[in-house]
Amino acid sequence: MAGRTGRRPGNPDTREAILGSARTAFADKGYDGASIRTIATGAGVDPALVHHYFGTKDKLFLAAMNLPIDPGELIVKAADGDRAGVGERLVRMFLTVWDGPAGAAGVALLRSAMGSEWTVKLFREFVTTQIMRRLAARLPIDPAEAPVRVSLAASQMAGLAVVRYVLKVEPLASMPREVLVSAIGPTVQRYLLGRL
Amino acid sequence: MAGRTGRRPGNPDTREAILGSARTAFADKGYDGASIRTIATGAGVDPALVHHYFGTKDKLFLAAMNLPIDPGELIVKAADGDRAGVGERLVRMFLTVWDGPAGAAGVALLRSAMGSEWTVKLFREFVTTQIMRRLAARLPIDPAEAPVRVSLAASQMAGLAVVRYVLKVEPLASMPREVLVSAIGPTVQRYLLGRL
Repeated sequence: MAGRTGRRPGNPDTREAILGSARTAFADKGYDGASIRTIATGAGVDPALVHHYFGTKDKLFLAAMNLPIDPGELIVKAADGDRAGVGERLVRMFLTVWDGPAGAAGVALLRSAMGSEWTVKLFREFVTTQIMRRLAARLPIDPAEAPVRVSLAASQMAGLAVVRYVLKVEPLASMPREVLVSAIGPTVQRYLLGRL
Repeated sequence: MAGRTGRRPGNPDTREAILGSARTAFADKGYDGASIRTIATGAGVDPALVHHYFGTKDKLFLAAMNLPIDPGELIVKAADGDRAGVGERLVRMFLTVWDGPAGAAGVALLRSAMGSEWTVKLFREFVTTQIMRRLAARLPIDPAEAPVRVSLAASQMAGLAVVRYVLKVEPLASMPREVLVSAIGPTVQRYLLGRL
């Protein structure tokens, strides 16, 4: 039925109950510890219904974060390609998304994420498992070094989002995208693949 | 009398009225546009009393932000010295303050700053005039390039604060200070004084 009408499947109350239970589980147990079974139990539904409504656990996490795009998917796309251009491609992709219609959702997410310890936990888990871990798996780097490298890159990306889109500090807030790609791309490149 | 008892000078209600008026004026008119006279009028007091309670406009801004330290002063100290070490000294100073007792106030400030458009304006004005402008004035760089360079450095510093202290993303949140100085110092150095 959902396919025919183009609407999301399921009863809206059930969907919301599942999303609420998923947020609690991801924040409290972490992505790896939160099973679909636990999330279903928390919402008082059958696990099969969770799969039916949301598909994979990754997709459920994305829905729980209210994000219009899948940052992990975009990051994987930017990571592929010639090795020397990874930093610039990541910064360009990041700016293209944030400069576009999804930017407002990004600002709202960052703001609410920083609002309380609970939302911080949920957001941190999302960033760690859905963005950083996927990026690390895609790069030709020593797995032992990957977490340090990817979290350094995250610090530059997070700061770019905060200064350009939340605080809107000039002149960075108005700088043309390609100027920022040239300035910040080499930083991300060095963090991910260069000498530290 | 204040000197004898060690307390801050003045009636607490008057102090609070001045600080409230200062926050409004700095957010609405900006640092340069907010005169002590306007702030005094907003609080219903004589301008001389504002000077008596808080000293300079810089010190009043600092009091209005509830900061236990003066970041502009620390940054100026870190900027002085050999040119090649500016980036590392700034990162080391930044981490030393945030890792110390003032860190909790920093987290609270960042969180509340991002909470609403009004607090964003106040915080942005503070960062721009009390930190970035003072740093720019201290560096041997073309004044025309200074705002771009300093705002790029701010993006890395802000991201470091968000990822390490607010979101506490690992492994960056637990990395030893000097490891971060070596990793991030060169980024700040390049933004401020290197080739972009």
